[in-house]
Amino acid sequence: MIRVNGVARSVVPATDRGLAYGDGVFRTLPVMHGRPQHWRRHYAKLASDCLRLGMICPDRDLLRAEVESVAGRQSECAVKIMITRGKGERGYRAPTHVEPTRVVISSALPRYPREYASGVALFPCRLILSAQPALAGVKHLNRLENVLARAEWDDPRYAEGLLQDDSGHAICGTMSNLFVVEGGALYTPDLGRCGVAGVTRERVMEAAARRGMKCMSQALEFDRVLAADEVFVVNSLIGAWRVCAIGTIATRTGDVTARVQEWLDEPEADD
Amino acid sequence: MIRVNGVARSVVPATDRGLAYGDGVFRTLPVMHGRPQHWRRHYAKLASDCLRLGMICPDRDLLRAEVESVAGRQSECAVKIMITRGKGERGYRAPTHVEPTRVVISSALPRYPREYASGVALFPCRLILSAQPALAGVKHLNRLENVLARAEWDDPRYAEGLLQDDSGHAICGTMSNLFVVEGGALYTPDLGRCGVAGVTRERVMEAAARRGMKCMSQALEFDRVLAADEVFVVNSLIGAWRVCAIGTIATRTGDVTARVQEWLDEPEADD
Repeated sequence: MIRVNGVARSVVPATDRGLAYGDGVFRTLPVMHGRPQHWRRHYAKLASDCLRLGMICPDRDLLRAEVESVAGRQSECAVKIMITRGKGERGYRAPTHVEPTRVVISSALPRYPREYASGVALFPCRLILSAQPALAGVKHLNRLENVLARAEWDDPRYAEGLLQDDSGHAICGTMSNLFVVEGGALYTPDLGRCGVAGVTRERVMEAAARRGMKCMSQALEFDRVLAADEVFVVNSLIGAWRVCAIGTIATRTGDVTARVQEWLDEPEADD
Repeated sequence: MIRVNGVARSVVPATDRGLAYGDGVFRTLPVMHGRPQHWRRHYAKLASDCLRLGMICPDRDLLRAEVESVAGRQSECAVKIMITRGKGERGYRAPTHVEPTRVVISSALPRYPREYASGVALFPCRLILSAQPALAGVKHLNRLENVLARAEWDDPRYAEGLLQDDSGHAICGTMSNLFVVEGGALYTPDLGRCGVAGVTRERVMEAAARRGMKCMSQALEFDRVLAADEVFVVNSLIGAWRVCAIGTIATRTGDVTARVQEWLDEPEADD
């Protein structure tokens, strides 16, 4: 089911700036038992991403009601929220008065093989992520790099890709954030130049901090990922997947990833 | 007027990949006396841009008929063509079988002050264009950099912005290509790392070659633009604008830009 600006319809104006320029942001989150999971975090990220583009984020309760409405009586589903700058005339300059467009879409939760949680292989993508600090971290609608990277492999043995920047630093998957374990500490790539700073990445970092486990965001050379004690990728729909190979190179595994998976299963107070 | 996949309607599916990811390309061209100008070139560019994204471009005559249809009886107008990869499910991976979406929109020609042809000032944008060779040159729908750059100034004294890359090379305007004149020769920025290779840029380069005037695409340091004999910007709707200042620094002017404007006014054989 789809709602556009609160109305049950499945189309957007052809002149929307989301289509014309990718001028907007989005999120995808799971709904369980009719409740959007980690709504507080997803809304905060949506609002902060809107701010980065100079847009006003629609009201929190309004959006939540629309998410619950498209989820309807499905016991569980995935909901995607897109917020665009709204309708526009021709030209890059945004109109002075413009209402953001809200698009809320429910779909079945993706069915990944159950084995993925215990180990997936990552395809090392050739595409190099470009560096744009003005947009880095934001989940905006300019996602051609992800589309091109995802088109690089067809082999079902690879559940996800691995992307790097032009300095040879590992950044993220095509749809996930990356973590490595080294000496009992967690490290995740710094996203100041490219990549999307996801909600599950934030949850892992906070959960580690609460438990006194060191967790740092830093530049992470590709070779360091290959040599790490453990590697895992996370997003809001998959939780955490243990990585057992990058390309044809097996990566090491340990028991920290399973602990992270347990952390992610714990309910959060205000959701 | 708007046609979507040939039908007179003003909406696209909310699940279109053009909206979700900016997964598509576009062009804007003038229609004069009911005829799309330089159609051969615009179609060729559209087809080559589609190829870069791994999409099949819709048929040339079909698209031309749709352009003429939205122009209707208007004696002159601007027509924008967007081609997206089509409707998609959730996820970056493109469906195996998917029909591109065609969106064709007519609007009034932009009314720029007549003085612009004889001299405009460019706003030196702070935003640095990111380098992505996999997408460079393509007029794709991921245009947030242009949106952010155009949002940097509001002062009507600036008709256009000037963008550079992370090596301090001038690349383009927010909506135009850049040329400089040095010793009677033309130079335009190399677009192998970022920027859009426009149809009018190509026309200028070919027109210069036909007249035996040297015209080269090369890396062009920002300071070289400031010091050039002449500077001008081009696109399909504006033709060529002479540049008389970049920020508060006056640039030199000469008579080559006027000759380029004359070249662009000449009709082309097969259009």
